[in-house]
Amino acid sequence: MTKIRAAITGVGGYVPDTILSNKDLERLVDTNDEWIISRTGIRERRILKEPGKATSDMAVMAVRDLLSKRGLEPDDIDLLILCSVTPDMIFPASANLITHKLGTSKPWGFDLAAACSSFLYGLHVGAQFIQAGTHKRVVVVGSDKMSAIVDYTDRNTCILFGDGAGCVLLEPSEDDCGIMDAILRSDGAGAEFLRQKAGGSLNPPSHETIDAREHFVYQEGKTVFKFATTNMADVSRRIMDRNNLSAEDVQWLVPHQANKRIIDYTAEIMGLPEEKVLMNIERYGNTTSATLPLLLWDYEKQLRKGDNLILATFGGGFTWGSMYVRWSYNS
Amino acid sequence: MTKIRAAITGVGGYVPDTILSNKDLERLVDTNDEWIISRTGIRERRILKEPGKATSDMAVMAVRDLLSKRGLEPDDIDLLILCSVTPDMIFPASANLITHKLGTSKPWGFDLAAACSSFLYGLHVGAQFIQAGTHKRVVVVGSDKMSAIVDYTDRNTCILFGDGAGCVLLEPSEDDCGIMDAILRSDGAGAEFLRQKAGGSLNPPSHETIDAREHFVYQEGKTVFKFATTNMADVSRRIMDRNNLSAEDVQWLVPHQANKRIIDYTAEIMGLPEEKVLMNIERYGNTTSATLPLLLWDYEKQLRKGDNLILATFGGGFTWGSMYVRWSYNS
Repeated sequence: MTKIRAAITGVGGYVPDTILSNKDLERLVDTNDEWIISRTGIRERRILKEPGKATSDMAVMAVRDLLSKRGLEPDDIDLLILCSVTPDMIFPASANLITHKLGTSKPWGFDLAAACSSFLYGLHVGAQFIQAGTHKRVVVVGSDKMSAIVDYTDRNTCILFGDGAGCVLLEPSEDDCGIMDAILRSDGAGAEFLRQKAGGSLNPPSHETIDAREHFVYQEGKTVFKFATTNMADVSRRIMDRNNLSAEDVQWLVPHQANKRIIDYTAEIMGLPEEKVLMNIERYGNTTSATLPLLLWDYEKQLRKGDNLILATFGGGFTWGSMYVRWSYNS
Repeated sequence: MTKIRAAITGVGGYVPDTILSNKDLERLVDTNDEWIISRTGIRERRILKEPGKATSDMAVMAVRDLLSKRGLEPDDIDLLILCSVTPDMIFPASANLITHKLGTSKPWGFDLAAACSSFLYGLHVGAQFIQAGTHKRVVVVGSDKMSAIVDYTDRNTCILFGDGAGCVLLEPSEDDCGIMDAILRSDGAGAEFLRQKAGGSLNPPSHETIDAREHFVYQEGKTVFKFATTNMADVSRRIMDRNNLSAEDVQWLVPHQANKRIIDYTAEIMGLPEEKVLMNIERYGNTTSATLPLLLWDYEKQLRKGDNLILATFGGGFTWGSMYVRWSYNS
């Protein structure tokens, strides 16, 4: 019996038009363009400015892009998973808002959260529904309106994040392409270093939490940097080893884009030259759940059927992981 | 080849000690015990009062109960899924907090949200990992500290909800027991009728949203009641029909506990007598994601290997669904 794999058979993406450059940030906080570029690799990021628009609206644009490219209708989707740390509301699930805005009530859907690793986790979840034979078409969306939870008076974090959405379609494949392997890890010992202090059941919103600015991203940058570097590189190397992949066998590294230096270190440990590393941090910053699908969207035309990709991520939790994907199509 | 199914092989539960009775509520809002009982079936609910304790802490108690009964260690878990609408924080994932408090970093984990249907959705997600052969032991937890998002000046909603946590262990089974079938549905057209208006990326927390009390459960009760009654009954009847189950074949209905009248109607449409319907609404109220696993926990000793259970749910989104489970053990 041929093994059924979950193959990525389409990608979609969306970034808002409004650009927030390093120069713009110089007017908001005590920082400068050279410092930001040298420490992070970021030149500009996109911001969703339209009033009344949120994470689900960017997701809708990304899914429409995907469906249009594939010639599919919203009713063709069986399940839609929204990966996000900035859902429109805590409930109902923004996945349900997305399908409603797409004009369908056919797919079921839910929200999945695991900080910056949400998308890779959601991709692994979506793949199980294909591998188990439960569904034929699963859309996994990563969408985050980070500007809703970024403190634009905090120069340590406001330079890092941007808004955006990306998505992939998963379908069954019997031609030995698709998601080949995954290593996913969590360690709650890292929880204190990267979090949104208030807004959940531990510290519900109050005038005090608003005044204390506790509804924004809080990050102890040095600690997170240290763990991100070590762990993302480790898990990326490990998935190569256990699949007997040499650096020559790997065509593309698709790494979470939190900081260019973390990415460079991961590529170095994997033995990969710069030209094999997908990058969009310069233009988008860290788009959290949207980063990985936006990379696939940006580079889709360069990916060839049979290419070996290593997806890698690290985020709050801590959560991290790597995934080995054999690409399924030429676009 | 024998089909691998995901079997529920253990349950755990926890409810806080503090009881909030209808009489207590009479002192908070203009309501009375008789009215609450006749309209909802609720006499009392549990409230997590300890300062600094939240959803993850109740979940830890429930998982410890499960592990202890099964003679397992936290390291034996491969994946822990937290289903909740009241995570401790928006990020990191409370699933990571739970495993950390259990003293392990071995399982990976994430949070899943789909309003009151979160647990049934999460159970279906967890089952895919077993069926696809990816994991051997998945713990699915439903935990909600509803008291953190309930407005105790709103007599329409504060009478309904309580705090609690429950969980199940999923393991592979080849003896034709376990999760046999599921019908899961979402329709975002229902989003406006049951939601938490602020606190996400659409309406971030502000002094205005606090003053407008927009961080609490908002519900248009009559509309939700109407859809819940129709849809939960419909999907429960449909899963019986497509599995050729007569009312005699079904030993237990395990329904979400939002309102006794919704449950009674579902049982009637299914042709089931009252004694086949698991109930805990009288003692716990609507514990949201915790409801279904707490029912299994309360009634565990009465469930026999081979019993046919229909799990059914309805919640904000709207989200709803039914699941056919053949019970796997005698306790």
